[in-house]
Amino acid sequence: MTEGTGRVRLHFAPADREVRVPPGVSVFEAASWNGIAIDSTCGGHGTCKKCKVRLLSGEAPVNPLDERAFDAAQLASGWRLACLVSTHEDLDVEVPPLVTRPKAATVGAGRQVILRPAIQKRYVELTEPSLSDQTADLERLLGAIDDLEPRVHLHALRRLPSVLRTSDFKVTAVVVDDLLVDVEPGDTTGRRYALAFDLGTTTVVATLVDVDTGTPAAIASMLNKQQPFGGDVITRISATMMDPEALGRLRQLAQETLAELTANVCAEAAVDPHEIYEVALAGNATMTSLVLGIDPEPLGVAPFILPTAAPYGLTAEDLGLDVHPAAPAVVLPALGAYVGGDIVAGMLASGMDRDKRIRLFVDVGTNCEIVLGDGDRILATAAPAGPAFEGGAIRCGMRAADGAIEVVRITDEDVDLEVIGDVDPAGLCGSGLVDAVAELVRVGLVDASGRFVTDDQADARAPKLAGRLTEINGERAFVLRWQGIEGDPTGSVYLSQRDIRELQFAKAAISTGWSLLLEEFGVEPREVQQVLLAGSFGSYLSPASAVRIGLVPPLAVLRIVSAGNVAGEGAKMTLLSIQERAGADALLEEVHYVELSDRSDFNDRFVEQLSFPTD
Amino acid sequence: MTEGTGRVRLHFAPADREVRVPPGVSVFEAASWNGIAIDSTCGGHGTCKKCKVRLLSGEAPVNPLDERAFDAAQLASGWRLACLVSTHEDLDVEVPPLVTRPKAATVGAGRQVILRPAIQKRYVELTEPSLSDQTADLERLLGAIDDLEPRVHLHALRRLPSVLRTSDFKVTAVVVDDLLVDVEPGDTTGRRYALAFDLGTTTVVATLVDVDTGTPAAIASMLNKQQPFGGDVITRISATMMDPEALGRLRQLAQETLAELTANVCAEAAVDPHEIYEVALAGNATMTSLVLGIDPEPLGVAPFILPTAAPYGLTAEDLGLDVHPAAPAVVLPALGAYVGGDIVAGMLASGMDRDKRIRLFVDVGTNCEIVLGDGDRILATAAPAGPAFEGGAIRCGMRAADGAIEVVRITDEDVDLEVIGDVDPAGLCGSGLVDAVAELVRVGLVDASGRFVTDDQADARAPKLAGRLTEINGERAFVLRWQGIEGDPTGSVYLSQRDIRELQFAKAAISTGWSLLLEEFGVEPREVQQVLLAGSFGSYLSPASAVRIGLVPPLAVLRIVSAGNVAGEGAKMTLLSIQERAGADALLEEVHYVELSDRSDFNDRFVEQLSFPTD
Repeated sequence: MTEGTGRVRLHFAPADREVRVPPGVSVFEAASWNGIAIDSTCGGHGTCKKCKVRLLSGEAPVNPLDERAFDAAQLASGWRLACLVSTHEDLDVEVPPLVTRPKAATVGAGRQVILRPAIQKRYVELTEPSLSDQTADLERLLGAIDDLEPRVHLHALRRLPSVLRTSDFKVTAVVVDDLLVDVEPGDTTGRRYALAFDLGTTTVVATLVDVDTGTPAAIASMLNKQQPFGGDVITRISATMMDPEALGRLRQLAQETLAELTANVCAEAAVDPHEIYEVALAGNATMTSLVLGIDPEPLGVAPFILPTAAPYGLTAEDLGLDVHPAAPAVVLPALGAYVGGDIVAGMLASGMDRDKRIRLFVDVGTNCEIVLGDGDRILATAAPAGPAFEGGAIRCGMRAADGAIEVVRITDEDVDLEVIGDVDPAGLCGSGLVDAVAELVRVGLVDASGRFVTDDQADARAPKLAGRLTEINGERAFVLRWQGIEGDPTGSVYLSQRDIRELQFAKAAISTGWSLLLEEFGVEPREVQQVLLAGSFGSYLSPASAVRIGLVPPLAVLRIVSAGNVAGEGAKMTLLSIQERAGADALLEEVHYVELSDRSDFNDRFVEQLSFPTD
Repeated sequence: MTEGTGRVRLHFAPADREVRVPPGVSVFEAASWNGIAIDSTCGGHGTCKKCKVRLLSGEAPVNPLDERAFDAAQLASGWRLACLVSTHEDLDVEVPPLVTRPKAATVGAGRQVILRPAIQKRYVELTEPSLSDQTADLERLLGAIDDLEPRVHLHALRRLPSVLRTSDFKVTAVVVDDLLVDVEPGDTTGRRYALAFDLGTTTVVATLVDVDTGTPAAIASMLNKQQPFGGDVITRISATMMDPEALGRLRQLAQETLAELTANVCAEAAVDPHEIYEVALAGNATMTSLVLGIDPEPLGVAPFILPTAAPYGLTAEDLGLDVHPAAPAVVLPALGAYVGGDIVAGMLASGMDRDKRIRLFVDVGTNCEIVLGDGDRILATAAPAGPAFEGGAIRCGMRAADGAIEVVRITDEDVDLEVIGDVDPAGLCGSGLVDAVAELVRVGLVDASGRFVTDDQADARAPKLAGRLTEINGERAFVLRWQGIEGDPTGSVYLSQRDIRELQFAKAAISTGWSLLLEEFGVEPREVQQVLLAGSFGSYLSPASAVRIGLVPPLAVLRIVSAGNVAGEGAKMTLLSIQERAGADALLEEVHYVELSDRSDFNDRFVEQLSFPTD
């Protein structure tokens, strides 16, 4: 496997879950992103020695810190600290069940979160009322939890008289933030669940979180049911402008998506939906508006205005969810019409507000959000990359589903493809597109301007590949996989000249964005110490290819890391810690939003960025 | 007309409304109780000279303060200050339209309330957003009303983007307490409505209030639709204990009653229900629980426990109301299971927490609430009076509807009746019952023990009435009105020996209550400076008769005043003034509740109180 291009497979036992992650990601992070709980209190620095796992197959070097945690026999039988194992080959990993309840959980890009959830449960045994003590039920309960001073939801008030009397006045008060949401018979303090949503334009992910332990109880994802209204936010906004019924329908579809995911994670984890006392949602500004039934039109037309930066005081009911009827909803705040709650969540999960390194956060998608910061100063912007990364406007483009080529490696001899689902290749998804172009540039079949070279040049540079350069549907193309007879392009999977142009436009938009941010920040591209690739697409991008086509600054590939589903992780963090929740709000003050469409030099910069870097 | 027994009729022009009030009530108060707006800023002390009215028929003496307000010609043509006209005969009163907007309104028992409603409207003209000012819509609006710092209801957030853009960013923010409930196009500051409910077990009254002026815009009342479940709170509580469906049904019926009244007042005043931004509700503890869907069982069985003393954070939606969708609801707090929000409202409206006189507040009904205070110290209790005052358990008893005898005067010669609706008498309502017994005691046909005298004694004491003493259905009775042939009791309206016993039990419960409170307070009955008779029944009780039977302490009748619908007035006050609203909460701390069922001497006292006072 060539470092920086392929993907490694990790199998976790006894959960029997297989995940595919970019190489270089630690086993601990890979597990954490995928909802497999590994104990840790040090935040992945090899010091707490809690994240002990055993490699059942595959090799990992012994780190000096491993030698402090294990004896020679344990090391020989494969025991390692999960945070120190950098994945560079397929591994089969045994994760021992949690023996201690962590007081902290690791979430996001290695962020250690001290558990301080808004959901609190208090078990109390109350004195029963009498003619000489006629204190009202609620005041009796509140007196026993008088450090909390919560407001009271009508649902809790309705349940109170009968719950008290059917449980001998031994009850558990459920308080979320400053609201008493319920009173439950007996001691239920061990069961506290919350639900985090990453409401993407394309994909929606729900993570059911046990806030008592900080670990995910179940994860589910599905396509956003709004798809029929168009693949990107602009088509959905347009729909609401053309049809007065569309807003209501889009709201309903988004809510149905959330509801279905809720049912799925509850079924998987055997959790009663009414045990979900709080939900959090991270989405871009348009998705957030649509799911709340707010007219998104001002987001879609200049000057691109949010209905609100910080939607407070919402409830799960406002999101159409059948969880606990009094559950509040945290909706992640937004910086701008095109830097939404998903990005704020991402910044939170990746520690953009804390890490002192100069870091560039890039969420690659139709709309690409870019954040640059050093922990003290943070700049953010949004670049319209278009649909290329999601397979749109690409001749053989498709989403990252079964049959999609997700990895392309080109040698002088041949073209090596990795296809999702171990089926015949049917098309190219975004990471495959970036790989294909990057590899063609590397082997010299595409020049720096983005043009396929001539047949003569191809014969000279890569004679065994030159035959794949042909004309398909009237334009020059490179065949990645022949279908049937070699030389006959019918049904083949190929990359056309216009496909390369689409990618050039997309990557130019993004690199114009970060180059302007770097300039505003006063640093050179090479001074960036880490690039975080986020989003459902960005996380799967090959760092080497991203550098090759100039999508990210020219850094060593190890400095370019996949951040995973940081939007969902950020949403989860707000459920696990009220301090992190405050941190999300603080980001609104700390981050300076740079509007690109306002810059007179944007077009010049954009043109400069169209070509690919030359070594 | 004998002072203290009859009722006087007031006709108000140009509103063309006729009301019937106990004599001694000022024209100003009578108008205020009945929703006729008369300007005033001094609170009915004759000093602001704003409450100018003209008597079109009927006479009232000229007060020295009238001479400061009017010249001789005006006085001669009937002009008077409404607060100084004590009604002792039928009057036809012309009320000039309001010329100035009062900064204060008079409500309750002459309480002057400085208008400081929770509903605030702010008209703002915002700068339109641009690429160089991308402040979100909500933050832009909140910036313009930054002294308020409200929370934001989703309804307001949903409306915001389109309302701003369809009204050139000239909008009115509607803030109720600390909640932004709406944003309206243009300047709507002149229209602010709220709705006060007196949710009685029998009768429900809705008052639509213009909080901009403090005046009622419309008043409507109707029977509580829960009636089929029983006439009193105990039968309704019992229903919920026997049938698990009953609570939901009772909630629905109460909510339907409120909804119908809402529609009625809105139609009468031509107010859009969505212009009602806040509601307040005063009800006894059972009615309050039922309308909110809270199990009332602990209210009905010892030790008689409230679900909560102070139900905060409720909404009009919780009450099933179709007013403004984000309207909050103020539900008056309660002191105990049998001293509910209606009584707290009554205390507020009658100034029990402020007036320095020793005052006794008695809300007469099936459950009778009694409050004794001097402004510094306040005691309260509840006495179970039974259904006699509402016509229950009385042979010829009926509610105060058409055909009910409401006033009875007995001379040595004859029996004089006043009947509601100018129809033939069909039965006795509560005030008629009290009058009848009081008059029979006064003329000596009923002795102090409550027994009808013998025929011989009757012949001696009132020969012209003795023929009315007869036997009906096996018990001794006094015929108030023969039906058909005199001497034939068939179909007559009469008072039986058992009826008198029912009334004795009722009045004994009440007088035991106030006598114990007086003792606890350390004052003698004759030291009480004012008795306020409240409630839909109490307000219509003849003070002289109440004294005669010992229902109230033996005071001069002028010290016994009708307080009117104080529950509804108290609810209204909470809508007009956030200070008064805080006052209602403060009452919870200030008032000491005395539980009668806990007292070992209750039964002895009760027996002592059964007999009627002897002069």
